[in-house]
Amino acid sequence: MATIKDIADKLGISLSTVSKGLNGASDISEGLRQSVLDTAVEMGYTNKKMKKQEHKKLCIFIENMDYETVDQFGYDIILGFKQAAFRDKWSVSVIPITPLFQTAEKYDTYMLKHGFSGAFLVGFALHDDWMSQLSSTTIPTALFDNYIKKNPNVGYVGTDNFEGIDYAVEHLFHLGHRKIAFLNGSLYSMVSDQRKQAFLDSMEAHGLPVEKELLAHGYYVADSAKDHVPSFLEHGATAIMCGNDLIASGVILECVRKGRRVPEDISVVGFDDIPVSANLTPPLTTIRQDRLELGKSGYYTLHSLIHKVSVSKSLLRAQLVRRESTAPAPEIRRRNIAK
Amino acid sequence: MATIKDIADKLGISLSTVSKGLNGASDISEGLRQSVLDTAVEMGYTNKKMKKQEHKKLCIFIENMDYETVDQFGYDIILGFKQAAFRDKWSVSVIPITPLFQTAEKYDTYMLKHGFSGAFLVGFALHDDWMSQLSSTTIPTALFDNYIKKNPNVGYVGTDNFEGIDYAVEHLFHLGHRKIAFLNGSLYSMVSDQRKQAFLDSMEAHGLPVEKELLAHGYYVADSAKDHVPSFLEHGATAIMCGNDLIASGVILECVRKGRRVPEDISVVGFDDIPVSANLTPPLTTIRQDRLELGKSGYYTLHSLIHKVSVSKSLLRAQLVRRESTAPAPEIRRRNIAK
Repeated sequence: MATIKDIADKLGISLSTVSKGLNGASDISEGLRQSVLDTAVEMGYTNKKMKKQEHKKLCIFIENMDYETVDQFGYDIILGFKQAAFRDKWSVSVIPITPLFQTAEKYDTYMLKHGFSGAFLVGFALHDDWMSQLSSTTIPTALFDNYIKKNPNVGYVGTDNFEGIDYAVEHLFHLGHRKIAFLNGSLYSMVSDQRKQAFLDSMEAHGLPVEKELLAHGYYVADSAKDHVPSFLEHGATAIMCGNDLIASGVILECVRKGRRVPEDISVVGFDDIPVSANLTPPLTTIRQDRLELGKSGYYTLHSLIHKVSVSKSLLRAQLVRRESTAPAPEIRRRNIAK
Repeated sequence: MATIKDIADKLGISLSTVSKGLNGASDISEGLRQSVLDTAVEMGYTNKKMKKQEHKKLCIFIENMDYETVDQFGYDIILGFKQAAFRDKWSVSVIPITPLFQTAEKYDTYMLKHGFSGAFLVGFALHDDWMSQLSSTTIPTALFDNYIKKNPNVGYVGTDNFEGIDYAVEHLFHLGHRKIAFLNGSLYSMVSDQRKQAFLDSMEAHGLPVEKELLAHGYYVADSAKDHVPSFLEHGATAIMCGNDLIASGVILECVRKGRRVPEDISVVGFDDIPVSANLTPPLTTIRQDRLELGKSGYYTLHSLIHKVSVSKSLLRAQLVRRESTAPAPEIRRRNIAK
């Protein structure tokens, strides 16, 4: 377990300041006190006083998503939720879950048996057993990237995928790209459905035709690229929009393998802005989801549901992060060189 | 100004309990303390201690909406916002506003000049001057029932109109209605646009054709009914969905004037559930928006924006409230009587 010294080292402050932060002393600033507590939560430090304050239990169920190290997509989501929940004196259990477990025990039963007041469900697939049970659950439940109709106990938390994809298409359009391919993530995912629809909407809004040869579903992994990129290139794509950053990393590799330069011949855009994306070659242009804020938003939504405020959707803005994987379309570059 | 005695009378508690609540004494429950403070905010009571705590300023701009008495649509929205803001020690100014004023002074200028940290805008129309300025404002701004694209400083707060209208159509469908008319509110309103699209979507989902003679835009007032109801009746409508409760109240009157009984001949559904709707003849079936929660949600969204968490949309669930203005379609009734 982390010690007070670990927290002091991480924040670059003295042991006594950490101690003041943990004990709510009045002679340090509110901002610093909160940093100490946030860091304690992040490092898993607890003391008796903190334990004593935690009198209520929430849990996070997580599936299909890595979250254990800081470079993984789920890490900040979990952390943001825990930090926000801790301020309201909740304890939070993180419970990895499988489809098999969901068939063995009903969601409501599990929650009641273990005394959880509510849950945040992250990474669930549309066809998961518990997802269908959520239509009638009486347990306050916040869902990351999933939506349940007409149940006031369940709220949807996520990033506005429509605006996010539109930022990407608009960016490519302004760079002169007209043949834009889209390599989406997995089928059976609400987020994939939204990003596909968003792509179709945005292409139409920009007056660009969508060619079916330039539209494909893969999986949310880098390996997806090799099944689809060759065909995109044959059909003349000058830019490839990707369902997430992992796919984009595979797309860049596959383009290079096929003898194309990124971004000179092909522009590539990701979605998520995971930590590794800034360090790819070339650094990836992507649509940022603020995962720490998404985690906090998950907690605030759950908090509202527990207090009978039936939040239906809580969406955060996406943000375009321009790096070096996008450039003017080859046609435009040639024209500029010719000038 | 309200006195401590007014608060005590309203809550049915002693003067000393009110005093304890206002002064944060530890020997009353947290729930009771909060009720005392909420009531103080509602009645406009302040004392020195409360004043001293208010060190930051927010404002609510309100247009096109009545809010001064408890039976008016805006009352609870304002109240919910103020109650939630007060807990975080903000002072809140309510500022009625006109289109003319908006052309005289820029939104950002007004906000900076008066030292407001953020605003909640209620009742604005799409073509208002300040609405177009919001695309580039740097001031944290929560918008009730309006949405601004791609500005991370502005968030949209409202009720999920799509689910709300779908509840109404589903309810009428289950009662056997097939010829459902929709008398919408004003043009140039995002909410009207959403409710119209929602109506089209939901009719299609239920396999019902939308006849153009059964679809009309009026205004969000009762008087709208007389321009459209006669034509709806001539074209065989058995149910009329309305853009809000005021329109529905006019629709009921107009149906009666035309010799039709509500709900025996014609079912009528409203939207909002304003206080008067339960007391209409017959009491109105409607889609409830929880306005107190909407006001709170406005504050929470603004609070997030001020803290650089860019909430894009925060939607609450709508709720079907069944009363006596809806009944099985005449065809079904006749069949049941014949049995």
